[in-house]
Amino acid sequence: MHAPPVSDLEGHDLREHVQGLVEIGDLASLQALLPRLHPSDVGDVLASLDEEKRVSLIKVLPVELASEALAEMEEDEERGDTLAALAPEQGAELLGKLEDDDAAGLIAELDPTERQRILDRLPADEAGEIRDLLLFEEETAGRLMTTSLVAVSEDISAEEAIAEVRRQGREVEDFYNVFVVDQHHVLQGTVPLDDLILANPATPVTTLVRPTDATVFPHVDQEEVGRLMSRYNMVIIPVVDPEGVLIGRITVDDVIDVMEAEQTEDLLLMAGVSDEEELRGDWNVAVRARLPWLAANLFTTFMAASVVLVFGKIIESFWFMAAIMPIVAGMGGNSGTQSLAVTVRRIAVTRGSLERRFDAVGKEALVGLLNGLALGMLAFTLAWIAVLIFPDVSHRLPWVVLMALWGNVMVGSSMGAIIPTTLHRLGIDPAIASSVFLTTFTDMIGFVLLLGLASALLL
Amino acid sequence: MHAPPVSDLEGHDLREHVQGLVEIGDLASLQALLPRLHPSDVGDVLASLDEEKRVSLIKVLPVELASEALAEMEEDEERGDTLAALAPEQGAELLGKLEDDDAAGLIAELDPTERQRILDRLPADEAGEIRDLLLFEEETAGRLMTTSLVAVSEDISAEEAIAEVRRQGREVEDFYNVFVVDQHHVLQGTVPLDDLILANPATPVTTLVRPTDATVFPHVDQEEVGRLMSRYNMVIIPVVDPEGVLIGRITVDDVIDVMEAEQTEDLLLMAGVSDEEELRGDWNVAVRARLPWLAANLFTTFMAASVVLVFGKIIESFWFMAAIMPIVAGMGGNSGTQSLAVTVRRIAVTRGSLERRFDAVGKEALVGLLNGLALGMLAFTLAWIAVLIFPDVSHRLPWVVLMALWGNVMVGSSMGAIIPTTLHRLGIDPAIASSVFLTTFTDMIGFVLLLGLASALLL
Repeated sequence: MHAPPVSDLEGHDLREHVQGLVEIGDLASLQALLPRLHPSDVGDVLASLDEEKRVSLIKVLPVELASEALAEMEEDEERGDTLAALAPEQGAELLGKLEDDDAAGLIAELDPTERQRILDRLPADEAGEIRDLLLFEEETAGRLMTTSLVAVSEDISAEEAIAEVRRQGREVEDFYNVFVVDQHHVLQGTVPLDDLILANPATPVTTLVRPTDATVFPHVDQEEVGRLMSRYNMVIIPVVDPEGVLIGRITVDDVIDVMEAEQTEDLLLMAGVSDEEELRGDWNVAVRARLPWLAANLFTTFMAASVVLVFGKIIESFWFMAAIMPIVAGMGGNSGTQSLAVTVRRIAVTRGSLERRFDAVGKEALVGLLNGLALGMLAFTLAWIAVLIFPDVSHRLPWVVLMALWGNVMVGSSMGAIIPTTLHRLGIDPAIASSVFLTTFTDMIGFVLLLGLASALLL
Repeated sequence: MHAPPVSDLEGHDLREHVQGLVEIGDLASLQALLPRLHPSDVGDVLASLDEEKRVSLIKVLPVELASEALAEMEEDEERGDTLAALAPEQGAELLGKLEDDDAAGLIAELDPTERQRILDRLPADEAGEIRDLLLFEEETAGRLMTTSLVAVSEDISAEEAIAEVRRQGREVEDFYNVFVVDQHHVLQGTVPLDDLILANPATPVTTLVRPTDATVFPHVDQEEVGRLMSRYNMVIIPVVDPEGVLIGRITVDDVIDVMEAEQTEDLLLMAGVSDEEELRGDWNVAVRARLPWLAANLFTTFMAASVVLVFGKIIESFWFMAAIMPIVAGMGGNSGTQSLAVTVRRIAVTRGSLERRFDAVGKEALVGLLNGLALGMLAFTLAWIAVLIFPDVSHRLPWVVLMALWGNVMVGSSMGAIIPTTLHRLGIDPAIASSVFLTTFTDMIGFVLLLGLASALLL
């Protein structure tokens, strides 16, 4: 719950105005204006201030708004630092206003001592709930779920169920359905609120209940939660223990955040950026997140380059080979990058669904065969023109170019599918088959093919 | 609404079994088993059959299941072909079972004559609703929205509102809130169903209503719809006309599908794959979606390579330059790819939000400066060792390598930020700044730097 925000259009102007206040650091005006913005927008304002100002502002904002804005801040590390910079009493006050899942997510950023200090100042039951959630590993369903929900017994009527909703619902935020459980609290299904309202009051709940399309165990990976909810168009997914006992629920808005974060991670991993990097982070974090990959890659590039040293003789004889090398290497890398992107995304999207069982690697190899032939023939033509212009160039050169290019495009296309498929089977994130390493590989193969064929046919 | 699916675990075994039946093409058994699966799973089964079998199966499945499964199929083109292959009466029967947004999305795949033939066989009001939705452009809020919703007047009580929900709600699926409108149907806000149930019956709706965090116009791009719903944690977003009149609503499940599709498109665009390609499509579609990009790139690669021809003399004198070229070019390309991925994702995620106004390009240039220096010094050391081993190599070579590598990493890093930022300002999808073209550019600059410096210092 938050103060009524202004309409979208007004909101835009207001955000512009607030941005100006942030830039001049006018905390007093911000304090007055921010309650008119959505907590997500206030979270952005907090993120764009330096830590000292952020802490000062949080101290003067209404507690509910401050806590929700902090929970909505995207930069995890900075959220934690800010919470740690507050007095433990203030931290506890903020956490106390949040749903248990948001509170757990926020306090998880702190080190154990700081956590303890804040939890000690919360009411025992709230602290206990948060501690329970923290027992689940990060990035699992258990960490995303809230334990606050409405559950009714299966042997009552719609009218009694509504009375039960009124009794339990005051403490619960944003619920769109009622869970139906047996006497052991084992989940039997759900009744959407709209069905409950529409039903004749005397209707037994058993005739309204729908089986849930999917449930998850608390240790299930958050990506899997996202896939299930997206696949079955769910707004709420119940979390159950191995006996089927209902222990929590996950709402779709948390899952959307997860999906966005995972997609960012995939894209960055493919490009050789570690997941430490935050999109709006500072340069020093960026250097730390990227340099190790680049340094590792410098060595693999050296390896690829050392292949060239083997073929010194052909380059000494035909120095223009140095101009053809990047063409052959580059086209193999490009077709490999295409194949890699399609395969990585395909694995991410279709995981767990009924898969058409054609062989993805076979398809990519075929695509490489055909595209390689087409590109090879284009390059052959261009090389042929070069031969016509410079009569001292061997007539075999166009054939060398055709075969090397064709071969390298095939290799690139196939490897772009083989690498992520293999990694996925081994249980490794397929996106880590970064295009960076793939292109080093296609460089190497391209040099071997071109210079090897040239040595055999031109010398 | 669909037949109760089996639980998740059973569902997995059942899906395995169904997969087997698909492979042997046992339509009779499929007809019996499919009603126990979720429409999304049935959609996958349909997608994995060839068209003839798909059409036969649709004819024998319960109409509701067949229509929902068809709507859930991910391959747009195949959905359309299947609908077109049915008799117009059957097509109309299927469409009649769907919500207007799903029906519009499905029939949009057909050409105008086929569309007309089916719409003529629907009741006039249903056909009219679908025609109205089709007037909005593809990939806009108007195409995603459904016009079926529950709206109440602001001057009634909670009890009267519930009675109104009962009256209007029978025709509406999956609603989680009630819209509050004035006498001109201008949106005043929303009341979540849970709040309506919890409220004292006599409470006036005006005290329950919450301003909506965001609304969209029907022409707004679907990506923007996704960003707003994700930003403000919305399950439903209202669609209004410029006067604020409520004309429809978009539910989060449709938006999740959009977000997934857009993310796939971004990743593939960056890798130089056009959005025609479907992740599970056939090889011929893949060739069509990729070859034009590769062919265009063959020419840009030729341009990069032609730079080398300018420096024939240095390569003739020092053939091992051909081994150093790919190292300098590759490291520039890799750091550029990192910068590109971070920038593209940053633009996608933070668009429309309060942006910390530091200069992204400046940050990337600084990161390139530092990473380039570190990598250049590493390469310098390796080149120094080479000089010690081969005394006939010039002592200036390590310096040439250091400067060329450093310079190219800086160029790559900066261009990786400049290209997508510029495209975004020009209103072009920044992901189209595919890594493919970036690396051609860094190849070219790398060759100029290395061979130019070598010509100046070594010859």
